[in-house]
Amino acid sequence: MTERLVVIGGDAAGMSAASQARRRRTPTDLEIVAFERGRFTSYSACGIPYFVGDVVPEVDALIVRSPEEHRRRGIDVRLRTEVSAIDLDKRTLAVHDLESGTKYHEPFDQLVVATGAEPVLPALPGADVTGIHGVQVLDDGVAIRTEIDETNPRRGVVVGGGYIGLEMAEAMLQRGMDVTLVEGESHPMSTLDPDIASLVTEALIERGIKVMTDEKVAGFEDRDGNVAAVVTENSVIPADIVLLGLGVRPNVTLAESAGITIGASGGIAVNRRMQTEHEGVWAAGDCAEKFHRIAQAPVSIPLGTHANKEGRVAGTNIGGGYATFPGVVGTAVTKVCDLEIARTGLNETEATEAGTEWLTATVDSTTRAGYFPGAEPIKVKVVVEKRSGRLLGAQIVGREDAAKRIDVLSAALWNEMLVHEIQHLDLAYAPPFAPVWDPVLIAARKAADEVEETLAECR
Amino acid sequence: MTERLVVIGGDAAGMSAASQARRRRTPTDLEIVAFERGRFTSYSACGIPYFVGDVVPEVDALIVRSPEEHRRRGIDVRLRTEVSAIDLDKRTLAVHDLESGTKYHEPFDQLVVATGAEPVLPALPGADVTGIHGVQVLDDGVAIRTEIDETNPRRGVVVGGGYIGLEMAEAMLQRGMDVTLVEGESHPMSTLDPDIASLVTEALIERGIKVMTDEKVAGFEDRDGNVAAVVTENSVIPADIVLLGLGVRPNVTLAESAGITIGASGGIAVNRRMQTEHEGVWAAGDCAEKFHRIAQAPVSIPLGTHANKEGRVAGTNIGGGYATFPGVVGTAVTKVCDLEIARTGLNETEATEAGTEWLTATVDSTTRAGYFPGAEPIKVKVVVEKRSGRLLGAQIVGREDAAKRIDVLSAALWNEMLVHEIQHLDLAYAPPFAPVWDPVLIAARKAADEVEETLAECR
Repeated sequence: MTERLVVIGGDAAGMSAASQARRRRTPTDLEIVAFERGRFTSYSACGIPYFVGDVVPEVDALIVRSPEEHRRRGIDVRLRTEVSAIDLDKRTLAVHDLESGTKYHEPFDQLVVATGAEPVLPALPGADVTGIHGVQVLDDGVAIRTEIDETNPRRGVVVGGGYIGLEMAEAMLQRGMDVTLVEGESHPMSTLDPDIASLVTEALIERGIKVMTDEKVAGFEDRDGNVAAVVTENSVIPADIVLLGLGVRPNVTLAESAGITIGASGGIAVNRRMQTEHEGVWAAGDCAEKFHRIAQAPVSIPLGTHANKEGRVAGTNIGGGYATFPGVVGTAVTKVCDLEIARTGLNETEATEAGTEWLTATVDSTTRAGYFPGAEPIKVKVVVEKRSGRLLGAQIVGREDAAKRIDVLSAALWNEMLVHEIQHLDLAYAPPFAPVWDPVLIAARKAADEVEETLAECR
Repeated sequence: MTERLVVIGGDAAGMSAASQARRRRTPTDLEIVAFERGRFTSYSACGIPYFVGDVVPEVDALIVRSPEEHRRRGIDVRLRTEVSAIDLDKRTLAVHDLESGTKYHEPFDQLVVATGAEPVLPALPGADVTGIHGVQVLDDGVAIRTEIDETNPRRGVVVGGGYIGLEMAEAMLQRGMDVTLVEGESHPMSTLDPDIASLVTEALIERGIKVMTDEKVAGFEDRDGNVAAVVTENSVIPADIVLLGLGVRPNVTLAESAGITIGASGGIAVNRRMQTEHEGVWAAGDCAEKFHRIAQAPVSIPLGTHANKEGRVAGTNIGGGYATFPGVVGTAVTKVCDLEIARTGLNETEATEAGTEWLTATVDSTTRAGYFPGAEPIKVKVVVEKRSGRLLGAQIVGREDAAKRIDVLSAALWNEMLVHEIQHLDLAYAPPFAPVWDPVLIAARKAADEVEETLAECR
């Protein structure tokens, strides 16, 4: 008998799961239906800032696989269709076709919940006027781009200085706007330690972005229904367009209503195979909890690369294979103009929360041999457990070719390496690629020396 | 009583050892003398091609620390001074001042042998004429550059297509010459598998280098004492200048004569602390054997980054500390024009020699998200143990931002990771830095699938 897989959410996680299951099982063995509330499937949400900034001129470029392509592969994609309820006992979904208004029920044997994340949007006075945008799904990106193209706004304000906030600030700069970044904390990029985040703040200012910190947004003013200003506790910031980058949280409303177990991090609880606690019910992507290998705790980290991997794991398992998702170490990277920023593992605060005692080492070096043309500055900071010397986390800021070096430290974290050993990793060396001691090795070496000194003091 | 450390060889390994010992022990506690046959100390030999190619205009830029700087730090550097014999019983060196002709004996308590590597130079007829150069020490680089500056040669021939050969070919291109690369094997870059090396060959030809393979050099022709042609078994190749890149071997003549144990790889045998079998005698750098963590065997790999690390380890130990060099995994990187080439671990031949059964996976991807401007092609090949899925080695060719990705695979090798786990490494993702699946992850994923298929066939 044909089994029936239904996927809720047509982006990275959901469609990876559907595609992988389809690769392993024929349509007569497994029927696959995917519901997507928006107009697009399998797109790069991380590409939205570059579409808005016109670095990527066509929205189609962000679409990895269109609904038609999925359909040709035997996946019944239904766009603009919202799932409003899951009945685990009857194993049906309540479905609402947003275009026709039709409501119906859809049965499933296997279910993948891939409902993604939803923006954190405080209920602020005036937040519903024209010209204020969240940046979450590709429809948001299209709306922002259309508005910029049509209204040619002069003053852009980004509320929230996380990854998306910084990337949207750059996008608005590229579109020729005066850009103000409004951050509630003392620095943008609160996932970095303050000493590193302060360098980012300086760099943003140097690149022409007005940065306002410790400014909590209180509401918005409008003129004829269009946003006119962002109001904080201290200031009124004139704005022709406002982008909200206040972070996201797992979109678990639907799952929670159905009684699917939500984990401590706020995401849907899953095991290593992406199974929820309920037979035949899977979750993947931003709505699903991830295990943080260094914090040794569940976390919510919305990121396309995790969503793709998790979806593929779920799809392999649904397809009759065996796959596990072994967790994350908290790697992230972004750039603003020529400034590259990356982090992995735990920052100081997170290391303390994880119960560790730590020390840090920060070094300045260059991305190539110092004498080689194009050598750019790079700063590497490592957070290291005292006594043991185990790497806990790392942060990098620098220019071209700086940030991707975080990957080595991510791999080192994954393997619970000590800085004493990391300093001797056999990293590729030639003058166009690195100094003879790669910056990553110098940071580990300095930390190893500090660990030794700390131990000597303890004796 | 003051102890006396004598270092033979004033480049990376020797001067790192001297400097590190000096940091830890005062001049009254430890006297340090360093003998160097050439005119320079602590320079970047890897930078020679870029000095010759005028990418780095001044030779001083390649010098990390001059003799005067070392002397100011309390290291008695003696240039143009050759050590002709080591007497381990009397603990003295026979020394020859090449400038004054003076010969004398120098006592030591601790000895660091850092005599580097020597070029493999077959005794070929005509090899002693003007215009034929080895590329080993900085004096060679100065001689080549001077000759190019003064004689403006039109036709440059590189004999030997290894790292230095390729880099010197690029340098000669940059100086406007017609460049021919003569390679004895079927492809340049014999440390790569033939399928990858053949891509390098194609790329060299595209970039304007004439590549002659399977051509064993038989000798040289001259005109009035200047080289006029390279003669192979099949061809006579006109040449105004010839650079020899036929590889190097550990320079152990002095150590061997003194009875210092030479290992199976041809380098001086050392333990993890860089101690030879002889009390108070240390070796570091290209002359010293390294432990290859994947081959689980001693190897000779001449490379500045190893030399620096090993020298520092020896110096820490001589200085009263405790440090070990945990071995290498065979990482190397180079570029020719815009082509980047990297490898780590074992290639197919080496994997067979190590007694493993293996499979390979090769993938083509891009360095950034495919839609992002500046996305460049990258090919990643992994060599993986059958059944276990353990990574054995990897090779990368591509353009900008391709090669340094080898570092993740190097770290994975170091930790004996399986491709099943490597495919899920938490590598940094954002569209300007990588596709949502980093090329390294795609290669591991493909290999993991192949391992699974192989296992299924075995059942």
